[in-house]
Amino acid sequence: MREAFVHRLPVAGPDDVAPLDRLIASGAIRPERIVGIVGKTEGNGCVNDFTRAFAVSALRTCLSKHLAPAALDAVTMVMSGGTEGGLSPLLIVFEAGEAGSGDAPALAIGRAHTRALRPEEIGTLAQVEVVAAGVAAAMKDAGIGRADDVHFVQIKCPLLTADRVAEAQARGQATRTRDALKSMALSRAASALGVASALGEIAAGSIGEAAIGLDASLWSGRASASAGIELMNHEILVLGMSADWAGPLAIDHGVMQDQIDIEPVRAALDRLGFAAQGQLPATQRERLVALLAKAEAGQSGRLRGARHTMLDDSDISATRHARAFVAGALAGLVGHAELFVSGGAEHQGPDGGGPVAVIARKPG
Amino acid sequence: MREAFVHRLPVAGPDDVAPLDRLIASGAIRPERIVGIVGKTEGNGCVNDFTRAFAVSALRTCLSKHLAPAALDAVTMVMSGGTEGGLSPLLIVFEAGEAGSGDAPALAIGRAHTRALRPEEIGTLAQVEVVAAGVAAAMKDAGIGRADDVHFVQIKCPLLTADRVAEAQARGQATRTRDALKSMALSRAASALGVASALGEIAAGSIGEAAIGLDASLWSGRASASAGIELMNHEILVLGMSADWAGPLAIDHGVMQDQIDIEPVRAALDRLGFAAQGQLPATQRERLVALLAKAEAGQSGRLRGARHTMLDDSDISATRHARAFVAGALAGLVGHAELFVSGGAEHQGPDGGGPVAVIARKPG
Amino acid sequence: MREAFVHRLPVAGPDDVAPLDRLIASGAIRPERIVGIVGKTEGNGCVNDFTRAFAVSALRTCLSKHLAPAALDAVTMVMSGGTEGGLSPLLIVFEAGEAGSGDAPALAIGRAHTRALRPEEIGTLAQVEVVAAGVAAAMKDAGIGRADDVHFVQIKCPLLTADRVAEAQARGQATRTRDALKSMALSRAASALGVASALGEIAAGSIGEAAIGLDASLWSGRASASAGIELMNHEILVLGMSADWAGPLAIDHGVMQDQIDIEPVRAALDRLGFAAQGQLPATQRERLVALLAKAEAGQSGRLRGARHTMLDDSDISATRHARAFVAGALAGLVGHAELFVSGGAEHQGPDGGGPVAVIARKPG
Amino acid sequence: MREAFVHRLPVAGPDDVAPLDRLIASGAIRPERIVGIVGKTEGNGCVNDFTRAFAVSALRTCLSKHLAPAALDAVTMVMSGGTEGGLSPLLIVFEAGEAGSGDAPALAIGRAHTRALRPEEIGTLAQVEVVAAGVAAAMKDAGIGRADDVHFVQIKCPLLTADRVAEAQARGQATRTRDALKSMALSRAASALGVASALGEIAAGSIGEAAIGLDASLWSGRASASAGIELMNHEILVLGMSADWAGPLAIDHGVMQDQIDIEPVRAALDRLGFAAQGQLPATQRERLVALLAKAEAGQSGRLRGARHTMLDDSDISATRHARAFVAGALAGLVGHAELFVSGGAEHQGPDGGGPVAVIARKPG
Repeated sequence: MREAFVHRLPVAGPDDVAPLDRLIASGAIRPERIVGIVGKTEGNGCVNDFTRAFAVSALRTCLSKHLAPAALDAVTMVMSGGTEGGLSPLLIVFEAGEAGSGDAPALAIGRAHTRALRPEEIGTLAQVEVVAAGVAAAMKDAGIGRADDVHFVQIKCPLLTADRVAEAQARGQATRTRDALKSMALSRAASALGVASALGEIAAGSIGEAAIGLDASLWSGRASASAGIELMNHEILVLGMSADWAGPLAIDHGVMQDQIDIEPVRAALDRLGFAAQGQLPATQRERLVALLAKAEAGQSGRLRGARHTMLDDSDISATRHARAFVAGALAGLVGHAELFVSGGAEHQGPDGGGPVAVIARKPG
Repeated sequence: MREAFVHRLPVAGPDDVAPLDRLIASGAIRPERIVGIVGKTEGNGCVNDFTRAFAVSALRTCLSKHLAPAALDAVTMVMSGGTEGGLSPLLIVFEAGEAGSGDAPALAIGRAHTRALRPEEIGTLAQVEVVAAGVAAAMKDAGIGRADDVHFVQIKCPLLTADRVAEAQARGQATRTRDALKSMALSRAASALGVASALGEIAAGSIGEAAIGLDASLWSGRASASAGIELMNHEILVLGMSADWAGPLAIDHGVMQDQIDIEPVRAALDRLGFAAQGQLPATQRERLVALLAKAEAGQSGRLRGARHTMLDDSDISATRHARAFVAGALAGLVGHAELFVSGGAEHQGPDGGGPVAVIARKPG
Repeated sequence: MREAFVHRLPVAGPDDVAPLDRLIASGAIRPERIVGIVGKTEGNGCVNDFTRAFAVSALRTCLSKHLAPAALDAVTMVMSGGTEGGLSPLLIVFEAGEAGSGDAPALAIGRAHTRALRPEEIGTLAQVEVVAAGVAAAMKDAGIGRADDVHFVQIKCPLLTADRVAEAQARGQATRTRDALKSMALSRAASALGVASALGEIAAGSIGEAAIGLDASLWSGRASASAGIELMNHEILVLGMSADWAGPLAIDHGVMQDQIDIEPVRAALDRLGFAAQGQLPATQRERLVALLAKAEAGQSGRLRGARHTMLDDSDISATRHARAFVAGALAGLVGHAELFVSGGAEHQGPDGGGPVAVIARKPG
Repeated sequence: MREAFVHRLPVAGPDDVAPLDRLIASGAIRPERIVGIVGKTEGNGCVNDFTRAFAVSALRTCLSKHLAPAALDAVTMVMSGGTEGGLSPLLIVFEAGEAGSGDAPALAIGRAHTRALRPEEIGTLAQVEVVAAGVAAAMKDAGIGRADDVHFVQIKCPLLTADRVAEAQARGQATRTRDALKSMALSRAASALGVASALGEIAAGSIGEAAIGLDASLWSGRASASAGIELMNHEILVLGMSADWAGPLAIDHGVMQDQIDIEPVRAALDRLGFAAQGQLPATQRERLVALLAKAEAGQSGRLRGARHTMLDDSDISATRHARAFVAGALAGLVGHAELFVSGGAEHQGPDGGGPVAVIARKPG
């Protein structure tokens, strides 16, 4: 039996690895067991956000003292920029080891690395299929047989740069866009549809290439994708429940239909044994290990019929508005803001909404 | 017996008075009964936010077709800039007329205009005293005898400009600051302390001038102040419950201790006859006429022990972060974002928190 | 013979019409002679810039005291948002009257208003054709027969908002983009190509719809387009030299090849009788009545081979960067920053550059 | 005889050390000769700009392959955030070695590290004196005897953080401010006055503590200070001309009286043997090795009598406006934007202006 360990570490800055160093020194975290690290850094979360790369650089330097290069490269690192509102910069470290105490089923973690895409494949059905196969592989790695037991799939996907576009053109291949920011959205979109296909949320054959990034009616309730410049393949982290895993941790999820639709998250909390009519009290908060959510402004320009101004604000990116606002709704529910709320939710939940996963210690 | 009428109007832009025109044309709003108009406009809510003045200009042009200049000037207009996150631009129109159906006590509205301050009085004990006297006069106007029956006091207060500072200097008088933005904070601070003094929340004599704008331990749970360049006196709107008023409307309030402390607001909703364990369902939402709140980042740089980055963000003002985040928490509670959430809460609620008033139709 | 009068008025805010009131009261400006007013307002110059509409509203209220509604509507008002860097908010009032002293040829002014576009027409060949016809009409109005005598064409064009996109969709029509900021670029692009077509800079038939906003090799050396949220049609102002006009004013222009290419502007100044080797000295500055320029970041991401970061900045729009930077280059040349520098120069001058017109009193 | 070598390296991002690696590999740069590295990084240049620390981190990693820890720590690294407008991110590497060809006098480089300040000393006369002594030491190190031979003094100074303020309070000491951003300004201000005192620009005894950061009439024409969170002492780099140094490089400087006062810079170029009536032509540009300047908005809110809006913009920091605008004026003069333009010029040049140093290869 395997056991998953999850640590939520507050950080003092993008390059703050002192909390990780301490837990490694104390033996609470064993570097060789680390499967992935997901984090929120305090940049703008958009194009010129260097806090993500700064954090990854510091984490690699830290772990390189404990891991061989190959083992270090195998650790999935997904940094999401933007801690708007009260969001608190943090790292979430995922470990997989041998089971100690605790019953099965429990939180299961699986990962997979896909083949590298060619630039012209980004945002196409080819990417959808590559990701779908990768998710299946990660489920296998996690020992999760049923798609319903998957509660969150975090994917790091590639994007286009001028060089990559040129390389494709040199081979006479056209990329779906020449714009780096657009390619990030297309790559997240295709990745999310790959998850939806792998989990049976959408019939594989039913996705048309033109729908990628456009048809908001197609979405996964468990996908979370983030594009990074440092890879051309995909790093996939699958989180779910499995009878092959034991221990005190469990995971469940809900899907927000819009930016303030918190009741599905409350229902997930209830299924995990929380019983809060209002805001989660401090006593119950300790059992909540991590909350991971996607947020976006929604293309309609309206929230429950009322006009919002996020899409027309040329001073603040809509993704920043959405993270701050959704974070407020979720923090109002769970009672703190040490949350992983990530923007850019193409096909990740319905338009304006998004998937929310909760990892908690089992009650009792 | 008098009766208060409150209308919440969504607007399509800062100068959109079409909804007001329509309600006046239909007779639903009677211009001569309008006591005040409070609104959220979609600017940045900081120094160079011209959407506030643009809205007031459009409202005055609209009402000038129905009111004589003196009557128009008597209408208190308080526009608050900043509709971050999902906040929806709106106008809240307050009318006072003869009671129709409905029992007493009910929502009562009173107003007062204070004497004009001299520039050197802004942010001083003199302003505190002037405002305290003004609040007492507005309570009298509303027929509210007990301070406990006051649930919200909206104040529009003056600020300093270069010309005003120079005028004072010409008389050999020094102003508390030469900076326009700082003078807005000082004026809100002194106004809030004036409310606290008038309502007995702080013993009048106990306030030292040095504490104004600095001592966060001094605060009112019912004050909401907004500084405007167009006046040197104060426009005060008092909202409370009075046996002299009848009708279907009631008001109550709660005080958030930090940006996500929504339970005191839920308690106020309960006292108003709402009974929502989770988010207010659509059926109950209709009874909710208006929610008015103050939001701020808090000077500690922490929310329930976790570091937030609002105060160190040089790209987005902390007031904008706070409005988006607090709006999310409140919208998650009441189920929509047509809320009046205003920033700059010096002495208006505890550090990081703020007063929240709810106006609702009585149940049953 | 007609005569053009041009007044440059500094303003204290978007709604400051006091300087205009004063010149009207003194007789220096005759309302019935006003053809158009071009101004710089201090908003962000992007989608949610309401300072443009606020200024137009104040100007219309001011002029309505002197002009009948039809005459007022005939006055072209083009407010360009964004006074980044040292740019100083101003109004430039253009009058056309009977010639007094002074020789022909002289500065000539013509204007035209086009029909309103439907949202789906923005950024299409339909807009190009509408604008081309409008420019021809304005040239006729100015009595300018030769395209070479046209030195500047200022156009105010519409943009898309979330609501306008939704309105088109409701009619089953797709807009060229859903993004408001992108729609401003497409609208300016189509307007500029309309000017290029009308002035014979590009063969009318040779423009393909796909080229609009993309093919930087197509451009006008005299077009200046500014998108505003407050209209759906176009307001066109043509400035040139004509033998039908007399008086002390003349106009010339140059085309900057990139953001710091000031020598073509210096050459235009020389042709107008200025002779400054370095920065224009104060003595010569007085003859300089107005400078109108377009600025943009350039799509290459490079300036004379060196990488710039304007296009990748998600905190500040590239148009704001470009206005501040180009304004610095031009102010360094002419010695002051009371300039009309407008952003978003798609097809207005070469990629990264832009047209610059100078209006000056004739020497001697 | 010593010789100074200066390399201007364009970079592709904050952590791009590839150009430095290449020049070290080719032998063009000898790590053991590096005295200091000054750079522009593409963050906001304000509080939450992590590109500075990211760059320093990458530079240290790069140089650590060639230098022992002590030698590495001796290399002064001053990263200035903010490449607004067309400014191009770059590194300027200063080396000191044995003289090869070329005559004396030539560019001379000296450095000094001061003692660490206590938090309560930041922004006080104590800091002024510490810096003044440090500048004297750096002049000695450079072999510059006469203050008039000093043309630029680059200082990296400390700032206050919440922790540092608390540490001082724990000792019963009050800091001059609790605000991090304000402490950066105060530290730059005291550093600049230290330079002015060391260079005899201001009589040492004549500076009152209250004047630090307030009295704009006190300034140095050669000081450039930048505050960094990573140190509590000062790193000082003095650049000037000395007969003890030989080689092809020379330095001179001018002082801009306001943001567009470029003629003093043109005069400095002339003294260095450039002879450009207009913009520096490409042929002469090659001799221009580096231009270092300070930029600021100016507290008057006016530029040559015309109102600017930089100080009232709550969306973009005034320092960002000023860098973009001044960069435009300087790039218009020298013909490219690979310039070191740094913001926050308290006492560094007159209010609104700033020192500008030019390093060039000698003519002929």
